[in-house]
Amino acid sequence: MTLLIVGSVALDSVQTPFGATENAVGGSAVYASYAASLFTQPAIVGVVGEDFPKQEITNLRRRGVRTEGLEIVRGGKTFRWGGRYGDDVNQRETLFTELNVFQDFAPKLPKGYHDIPNVFLANIDPDLQIDVLGQMRKPRLVVCDTMNLWIKTKPASLTKLMNRIDVLLLNDEEARMLADTSSLAKAVSKLRGGGIERLIIKKGEHGSMMFSSEGTFAAPALMLPSVKDPTGAGDTFAGGMLGWLAGRTLTEVNWRKAILVGTATASFCVEDFSVGRLRDLEKGDLARRTTELRAMMSVGRV
Amino acid sequence: MTLLIVGSVALDSVQTPFGATENAVGGSAVYASYAASLFTQPAIVGVVGEDFPKQEITNLRRRGVRTEGLEIVRGGKTFRWGGRYGDDVNQRETLFTELNVFQDFAPKLPKGYHDIPNVFLANIDPDLQIDVLGQMRKPRLVVCDTMNLWIKTKPASLTKLMNRIDVLLLNDEEARMLADTSSLAKAVSKLRGGGIERLIIKKGEHGSMMFSSEGTFAAPALMLPSVKDPTGAGDTFAGGMLGWLAGRTLTEVNWRKAILVGTATASFCVEDFSVGRLRDLEKGDLARRTTELRAMMSVGRV
Repeated sequence: MTLLIVGSVALDSVQTPFGATENAVGGSAVYASYAASLFTQPAIVGVVGEDFPKQEITNLRRRGVRTEGLEIVRGGKTFRWGGRYGDDVNQRETLFTELNVFQDFAPKLPKGYHDIPNVFLANIDPDLQIDVLGQMRKPRLVVCDTMNLWIKTKPASLTKLMNRIDVLLLNDEEARMLADTSSLAKAVSKLRGGGIERLIIKKGEHGSMMFSSEGTFAAPALMLPSVKDPTGAGDTFAGGMLGWLAGRTLTEVNWRKAILVGTATASFCVEDFSVGRLRDLEKGDLARRTTELRAMMSVGRV
Repeated sequence: MTLLIVGSVALDSVQTPFGATENAVGGSAVYASYAASLFTQPAIVGVVGEDFPKQEITNLRRRGVRTEGLEIVRGGKTFRWGGRYGDDVNQRETLFTELNVFQDFAPKLPKGYHDIPNVFLANIDPDLQIDVLGQMRKPRLVVCDTMNLWIKTKPASLTKLMNRIDVLLLNDEEARMLADTSSLAKAVSKLRGGGIERLIIKKGEHGSMMFSSEGTFAAPALMLPSVKDPTGAGDTFAGGMLGWLAGRTLTEVNWRKAILVGTATASFCVEDFSVGRLRDLEKGDLARRTTELRAMMSVGRV
């Protein structure tokens, strides 16, 4: 186990112009775990109800994901999310959110989890993220994601959390909201000035940017002719990136390479609903796309 | 003269959260000419009224821009545009458009202009773009820009024009509109399938992308802490890019380098109102920013 992933485990009902799913497996921790499992052995921490399909847990295990930290609440109902995407997949509408077993979730790390060197606090209530972090001994890397809901409703918890993480991962809208400015450049300055060592901004189809004392990095996204369901793309990006990094030294070059690996992994996620494309994805599938990304970024040697 | 630029010459009234201008010099041909003048001798083709400040023509000439093709209509009034930007500079509202002398403009190329090897048809009525192109002998490179207004009102003229150009330059919204799809990937396929040799998509703060049979290139934009007025950024990008290319062979590598030069030039444009920052810009000013862009794109050698 080299990467602990805490986040939501959900049953998603998603509508896009290309189809719909009902109660399909989803959640930030699931997407991130599938992606990370390409490169390392992730250990998931989360909660589901008794209604969560056993087969989905088996599927995760088959990919090498450790699931002792996935609590199953007797008689409980799994967290559910419903959303709809329009023709422009960047426009998402949340139809419903049922917290269910998440309401009273108090994560307890199983034996052996406290020493995992890398931690990804995927998007859940920041109080739960803090709770999990408090149970870790001394991870070498703590990466945190969040969302507009928590920025609005739990700013104090987020501030507390910010002081204890190494890397913050956000989309551009969230970064502007968290820093309370309409300028992304100002948001980046403000967030980095607050002590964040490394800031990664996800921009969906526009790629991503990474900021640290070692420089600014900008990566494009792949142009995909068929985007069926963008749900989970950001978590897949993070999982691929952190899974690849988990066994490597945290140099700037490795971070940059990891961003490309995460980008390539996310490009598969969106080509199918739920984790349809991730379940059987192999490392080899990524090679062509990371090469393509590097060619897109190359100036001098075409 | 190596680059003919036909487009609008305007007096702009712009409001942004950082200030306002009234009847300041603007227009696609003016921004593009200032930018191109850093690298070559552009020749402008356009029309103004008697109210257009003589000093502005002197300023263009001082930068080496040839202005014999800038018709001054006796008693006429210059094209005027008014716009307002909100906190989010990507949201632009047009307050008014007065065509004035543009209404009856029939461009006539001065002696010596017919053989200029590179042509930039900056954004104006596509019928005028066709007209100018018809007067050229055999340019080696024809690059065309347009806007949503012409896509809506003059689709037939645009289709006719598309068959006669080498490179199409659009922003992402225009590309989707012109190809009638919400997917940028599909828009790119459709436009390139229509016979466009090279397609360049401007994405503002997200940079730009270039598509040709030789590959896909993605360039980021610089993160600017102070964006005062984004008017003219796209034309400045084009002018810098094409000015730099005007005296060079049209290889894929040169196109990619030209995109970075254009990006750096545009980054100065937005730091002041009107052409305030472009008027005295020197080649040396660009060096730091193009180096910065390349560092942002570099994966392996940090």
